[in-house]
Amino acid sequence: MKLYDCTKAPNPRRVRIFLAEKGIDVEKVEIDIAGGENLGADFKAINPRGMLPTLVLDDGTCFDETVAICRYFEEIQPDPPLLGTDAKSKALIESRQRQMELDGLASVADVFRNSHPAFAKRGLQGVENVAAINSLVERGTGATQRFFDRLNAILSESQYVAGDGFSIADITAICVVDFAKWVKLGLGDEHADSRRWYQEVAARPSMTA
Amino acid sequence: MKLYDCTKAPNPRRVRIFLAEKGIDVEKVEIDIAGGENLGADFKAINPRGMLPTLVLDDGTCFDETVAICRYFEEIQPDPPLLGTDAKSKALIESRQRQMELDGLASVADVFRNSHPAFAKRGLQGVENVAAINSLVERGTGATQRFFDRLNAILSESQYVAGDGFSIADITAICVVDFAKWVKLGLGDEHADSRRWYQEVAARPSMTA
Repeated sequence: MKLYDCTKAPNPRRVRIFLAEKGIDVEKVEIDIAGGENLGADFKAINPRGMLPTLVLDDGTCFDETVAICRYFEEIQPDPPLLGTDAKSKALIESRQRQMELDGLASVADVFRNSHPAFAKRGLQGVENVAAINSLVERGTGATQRFFDRLNAILSESQYVAGDGFSIADITAICVVDFAKWVKLGLGDEHADSRRWYQEVAARPSMTA
Repeated sequence: MKLYDCTKAPNPRRVRIFLAEKGIDVEKVEIDIAGGENLGADFKAINPRGMLPTLVLDDGTCFDETVAICRYFEEIQPDPPLLGTDAKSKALIESRQRQMELDGLASVADVFRNSHPAFAKRGLQGVENVAAINSLVERGTGATQRFFDRLNAILSESQYVAGDGFSIADITAICVVDFAKWVKLGLGDEHADSRRWYQEVAARPSMTA
């Protein structure tokens, strides 16, 4: 199998951290998103949506979403479990991981894509000639700040984002915090619980993957 | 347990169809999104994100995301399977379900929320005083049209959205098609495979849930 990757982008990083936590090594092919390689005919023949990461199995089956790729590896190698072990933990982790992604990662992405000059005509992932929308920078900034408050509320009640154990929800969350630095947003002094959590999670060996 | 529901909205409908497919009956509490009940203090005490559907277990555990709620029920009652049965089918279904949601449902929602007068100051779910952004109507319309083309390409190669069996990806997809009617968007004459699929799936008894 081959993992189409982009070392600089936050979504491919989520998969690399997930694989590092499991100790799985996969052949990787680097695709240059900033240079538009993901929009070219060669990559679109692999993934018509033009998005990274993408995993292609030896039989040609293509998984073109971060969490779907993670689920594939969780199924073929359950240990250590990162998506939960019973109905309740699986649903709580999925709930929190989606919250990190939809409220956090998507909000930072709105700020980034709609403000960075290189994406002025690439307002949506994987598509050409979609203009950036300036108002999304302000909306995304507010949403990111609300997200950081919510993350801190969660981490004031539990050690990790989805309870007592490290999970995919923590992987997405730390990728949000690091991605937010690109647009000069971050945890505030008032987010003490998040800072405690960040310090611990950022020290895991998988984080440099 | 209690399922906080909204009979008119597309996301709660996804859960109701999922439960109907499994023959599971759950106590429901109707929340009026159009009237802003989801933004009030009473509901925010249950789900701080102010979003529907929300499932609360008897021990107080709260799942506030559609697919997380579905996963909980899939785990406690695996038959009929709607999230896959092995590593490959689980990952393919997750990949396609997310495509239906992120490229389809989110695009239609951009058109709807940013054009409907009732949401002029509710541009983001669950939050007050976020102005609608007019440019998202055009962007969302284009994205919806691209989504319908992609859906048809998928359905020209397989009977259902994620292979040979009905799955959660079909549930999300049909909710996109029906939600799109609210903003006068829909499958075109050129989408013959999607029309064949829609006719079959819309006839399932679960669809009236």
